[in-house]
Amino acid sequence: MSVNVGILGGTGAVGQRFIQLLDGHPEFELTTITASDASAGKAYREAAKWRIDSPIPEYVGDIEVRATDPSDVPDDVDLLFSSLPSGVAADVEPKFTEAGYVVSSNSSNSRMADDVPLVIPEVNADHLNLIEVQRDERGWDGALVKNPNCSTITMVPTLAALDNFGLERVHVSTLQAVSGAGYDGVTSMEIIDNVIPHIGGEEDKMVTEPKKLLGSFDGSEIVQHDVDVAASCNRVPTLDGHLENVWAETAEEITKASAEAAFAEATTLDLPSAPDPLIEVFEDPDRPQPRLDRTIGDGMQIAVGGVQETPAGIQYNCLAHNTIRGAAGASVLNGELLVEDGWV
Amino acid sequence: MSVNVGILGGTGAVGQRFIQLLDGHPEFELTTITASDASAGKAYREAAKWRIDSPIPEYVGDIEVRATDPSDVPDDVDLLFSSLPSGVAADVEPKFTEAGYVVSSNSSNSRMADDVPLVIPEVNADHLNLIEVQRDERGWDGALVKNPNCSTITMVPTLAALDNFGLERVHVSTLQAVSGAGYDGVTSMEIIDNVIPHIGGEEDKMVTEPKKLLGSFDGSEIVQHDVDVAASCNRVPTLDGHLENVWAETAEEITKASAEAAFAEATTLDLPSAPDPLIEVFEDPDRPQPRLDRTIGDGMQIAVGGVQETPAGIQYNCLAHNTIRGAAGASVLNGELLVEDGWV
Amino acid sequence: MSVNVGILGGTGAVGQRFIQLLDGHPEFELTTITASDASAGKAYREAAKWRIDSPIPEYVGDIEVRATDPSDVPDDVDLLFSSLPSGVAADVEPKFTEAGYVVSSNSSNSRMADDVPLVIPEVNADHLNLIEVQRDERGWDGALVKNPNCSTITMVPTLAALDNFGLERVHVSTLQAVSGAGYDGVTSMEIIDNVIPHIGGEEDKMVTEPKKLLGSFDGSEIVQHDVDVAASCNRVPTLDGHLENVWAETAEEITKASAEAAFAEATTLDLPSAPDPLIEVFEDPDRPQPRLDRTIGDGMQIAVGGVQETPAGIQYNCLAHNTIRGAAGASVLNGELLVEDGWV
Amino acid sequence: MSVNVGILGGTGAVGQRFIQLLDGHPEFELTTITASDASAGKAYREAAKWRIDSPIPEYVGDIEVRATDPSDVPDDVDLLFSSLPSGVAADVEPKFTEAGYVVSSNSSNSRMADDVPLVIPEVNADHLNLIEVQRDERGWDGALVKNPNCSTITMVPTLAALDNFGLERVHVSTLQAVSGAGYDGVTSMEIIDNVIPHIGGEEDKMVTEPKKLLGSFDGSEIVQHDVDVAASCNRVPTLDGHLENVWAETAEEITKASAEAAFAEATTLDLPSAPDPLIEVFEDPDRPQPRLDRTIGDGMQIAVGGVQETPAGIQYNCLAHNTIRGAAGASVLNGELLVEDGWV
Repeated sequence: MSVNVGILGGTGAVGQRFIQLLDGHPEFELTTITASDASAGKAYREAAKWRIDSPIPEYVGDIEVRATDPSDVPDDVDLLFSSLPSGVAADVEPKFTEAGYVVSSNSSNSRMADDVPLVIPEVNADHLNLIEVQRDERGWDGALVKNPNCSTITMVPTLAALDNFGLERVHVSTLQAVSGAGYDGVTSMEIIDNVIPHIGGEEDKMVTEPKKLLGSFDGSEIVQHDVDVAASCNRVPTLDGHLENVWAETAEEITKASAEAAFAEATTLDLPSAPDPLIEVFEDPDRPQPRLDRTIGDGMQIAVGGVQETPAGIQYNCLAHNTIRGAAGASVLNGELLVEDGWV
Repeated sequence: MSVNVGILGGTGAVGQRFIQLLDGHPEFELTTITASDASAGKAYREAAKWRIDSPIPEYVGDIEVRATDPSDVPDDVDLLFSSLPSGVAADVEPKFTEAGYVVSSNSSNSRMADDVPLVIPEVNADHLNLIEVQRDERGWDGALVKNPNCSTITMVPTLAALDNFGLERVHVSTLQAVSGAGYDGVTSMEIIDNVIPHIGGEEDKMVTEPKKLLGSFDGSEIVQHDVDVAASCNRVPTLDGHLENVWAETAEEITKASAEAAFAEATTLDLPSAPDPLIEVFEDPDRPQPRLDRTIGDGMQIAVGGVQETPAGIQYNCLAHNTIRGAAGASVLNGELLVEDGWV
Repeated sequence: MSVNVGILGGTGAVGQRFIQLLDGHPEFELTTITASDASAGKAYREAAKWRIDSPIPEYVGDIEVRATDPSDVPDDVDLLFSSLPSGVAADVEPKFTEAGYVVSSNSSNSRMADDVPLVIPEVNADHLNLIEVQRDERGWDGALVKNPNCSTITMVPTLAALDNFGLERVHVSTLQAVSGAGYDGVTSMEIIDNVIPHIGGEEDKMVTEPKKLLGSFDGSEIVQHDVDVAASCNRVPTLDGHLENVWAETAEEITKASAEAAFAEATTLDLPSAPDPLIEVFEDPDRPQPRLDRTIGDGMQIAVGGVQETPAGIQYNCLAHNTIRGAAGASVLNGELLVEDGWV
Repeated sequence: MSVNVGILGGTGAVGQRFIQLLDGHPEFELTTITASDASAGKAYREAAKWRIDSPIPEYVGDIEVRATDPSDVPDDVDLLFSSLPSGVAADVEPKFTEAGYVVSSNSSNSRMADDVPLVIPEVNADHLNLIEVQRDERGWDGALVKNPNCSTITMVPTLAALDNFGLERVHVSTLQAVSGAGYDGVTSMEIIDNVIPHIGGEEDKMVTEPKKLLGSFDGSEIVQHDVDVAASCNRVPTLDGHLENVWAETAEEITKASAEAAFAEATTLDLPSAPDPLIEVFEDPDRPQPRLDRTIGDGMQIAVGGVQETPAGIQYNCLAHNTIRGAAGASVLNGELLVEDGWV
């Protein structure tokens, strides 16, 4: 089986990751890349300033970039990945879904909309069924599915594993890599020998998105989980890999052993990009570290370490590659689930 | 008034900070520096590899380094600052106190000993009265006073300010600078493009030391505070300045406004190295930042920002210069208090 | 004596350095700051995002920013410092000189123009006399004087010192700090764990500017020096301080001793911002280092080390603070010379 | 064909690279690892603190580490790679060669000895014939072959390519990664926001080793090349990859085009670890960059860019991975040549 796929906004940092992840993908064939009107008509290698440390796949370099408009995308494309700036995406993604395309989007717009599935396949695959509601309400032939923010994705699979104990409250401190802000997002003058203890909008995403992700679909809507999350988000001088310190409080008593067992037994899926196990637990207390561990499971695994009991619950660190598991890889995995479940 | 002071272990990184802080001090005159036997007899400028970005004060360069032994220290030295490695300090500091010297020590040994005052002047100056107990029990003429660990000092003044609301539980995530581990403590291969989510022994210090610091002296012993602290300590690629994300839960309701007022009104002291105010509150949510704010109040102030209410209490960031307020400056301030209160 | 001065383009990174250097200046009183029309009318503290690690001087924060136009600048301003983007400066600086203002500019436009003095006071103070030619040709009442590029300034004082030996050829490799590109000039994604071996336009400036600076003014024009410079410019992950490896070949034989003597004896001037000595020679082969030595002489001194003889001549390293001696401080020093020589 | 190989000193940073490079090698089977007596007898995974970002190969983790003594190494090992500290190597390597082992060594001792081949296979493979002289003089059954220092290897293949034009003089400035000093070689306090313009002994190696490498073997000795090299060596905050700025002066005229052609046509070899082409020439002036380009050709290729004509000759930048092409990979490639030429 081969599914023709395209990328909306393929010249930026996340777009380049999509290309890297789709190169040699067993199910997807990348045929189409869109970008701004200024790039349309150019060969991809001319349109993009390639910044990944492996070369542009030859056939991708030759692809002629198209305008980001349904009329410019071939009909035989079955699935679109979106890494558009959220402002653009809010305007453009509905045009594609209206035109019948299924869009698996990493852009932050509409993530919390009532009829848009926000999905991490190993956590809440059944939320895809919200697509029925979406199509009813919007009259779309296509579908719009979102993956959460990179800092949320790093933590939520671990919270899902602990929810057997009745998750009630979470404090989380993030140490986020500069690539999370995009190629030009953090200047060197800001971050060399420094930490920035604030990332605009990020803390709010970490408070709201987990409630939806951990919620349940009752056939007509997502009933949100009532976990209280308080987040403190920091930018640190690392290139890739978000590290997070988590304190979780649960209704039932939780021990280091029971937490580690829950992490180790977290659901895995039989999808091409799904890692097995989902969560790798480190015993060495100084792991995981961003530079050493961000690429485990080809950047799709969640690394956990430093599990300890505290007076109020459990404390641990988790790490994921923010532009793979946290962005492009998340959308690709959602795409694989959409195909598996018959939505594409 | 001028007090002759000496430094035990004056060639290392903290020793050099002591020299910098004592240069031009209004009350203290540095006359004596000790180091290992290998350095004894050399001029200081030959014995130390000076690594601070201001030059060695001329008169300090000429000081002849002495052995770290009471017999080698002049009798007219009234106060000794100690930055010895803790293993050495455990052995040597009692020899000096037995010989009648008052020692204000930054070394980590004996901090939690029942009869050793662990002091931050603005927080628990009255704990100095424990010296009476110490002298009774040990038969010393001198005295041994400790300041807490650098990561503890950064946070405890803010906790003390919140204790009016009945402090019950604290979660704290630290982003600590490499200088906290000493000049050779963190290799570049470990920390460039990386974070290390564990600092050996540090989390335990942050759990235990605040209970003693926030405790009360009942005339014979320190009654520990019952606050529960859970800490997650990270080393990040910054040179100086420990930044900490704190969540505090209190018995009484606490708001952003009441917390900020409590911080702004924290006790200040009339001592040469005591900053006024003790705590500087920033309104800009992306401050304080280590590189921009670590030297406020000559490195003795605590910077606070990002104050927010959470479902369980209050969340904020605090920052202090780890080798000034968190080490050498802390000992100097304790020395000033010892003089003020008549112990020297 | 007090001279009223203003800054054209005072909200950017170099503009902020101007403010820092002018605060407390013995001769200059900062009364006027201009910026883009969007900022005009605002208090400086509202108009600028202050990024220096010392606070905005109180009186500067209150200054009302003006438009960058002669009609908006008070007549009692005697001297203007310019840190405008070069494209803007090319258009605006002539309007101010025509209106009678003396402009000491750090902007890169017009540096190589035949009738514009390009000056490092300790090297070629007499080139200021070119102002007569400039006024004749352009019909200006004011004057336009430039300082060279930051990488050029670091090296040229050392070349001037060696010119007694008949300077013929120079190879220079630069290791330049990110601040040289402006606050937003180098993204963190480009430079963490990396070096960029190219800085657009920089190599050319290092080839051409020294010929003019080391040239002689014959009463009507600058006769350029015939030294051949070949430069290789690298951006490295340092915040401030350009370090340069230099190989110099001279007509006469040169030794380590004679070179070091020439450096130590380089001309100094009796101006408020002029360091004495101009060049500090380090014997320790691993100095100067950017972080340790960039602020010697308040950032105005040139640090030299690693002097060695080679088969073809002499080899050494030099370092200067790129935004002080290499930018704002250079313009201020030129301003002081302009006053001293009666042009203001 | 399969050759049993061992590593002398296999637990350190270069030892770990040897293991990584030998894993899956088409000709070599790693059977033996030696280390200090303290490690002997332990499983490799217990003896080494593994710091590479790919896991220890399973079979290597199980290898029982042996003492670094010929009596403890099995007789069926045909080839030994050495990454011993040079002080140890000077003592131990001769014991192995005397016992009949062929040793391909990365250690810096004896590189300039008259009867020890110093080899980069693509540059001076015929120098291996010096082994005959070595065996005659020392009475060894085995052989000792060295690869040059990491900073030398990066540059010499490019110099060899230019020697058709009659290489006379070279100025080279290096920007070297911290890994070149070993895992603990550069502390973070030294190098964050800094450059160190001196690496002990390094400049001398870059002056002397090229003369031997570019020399010719006349049947009894190496006749050294008379090129004059002057080097300035800098440590910069990069993890891997030495970047070098080179100025080369030749007897015959050289142009950008002829230099680039010479680089592109440099000799390649048909050995498993030999890259093809040897030298990759970049047209984009801001390449090669350490982080983006250090792994081209699996870390064995030399990257060249920024080729420009200068008044005195040619200027360019070159880059190689210092612990692969510059250390472990260099020894492995020498081992492959030793096998190909029948010395093993």
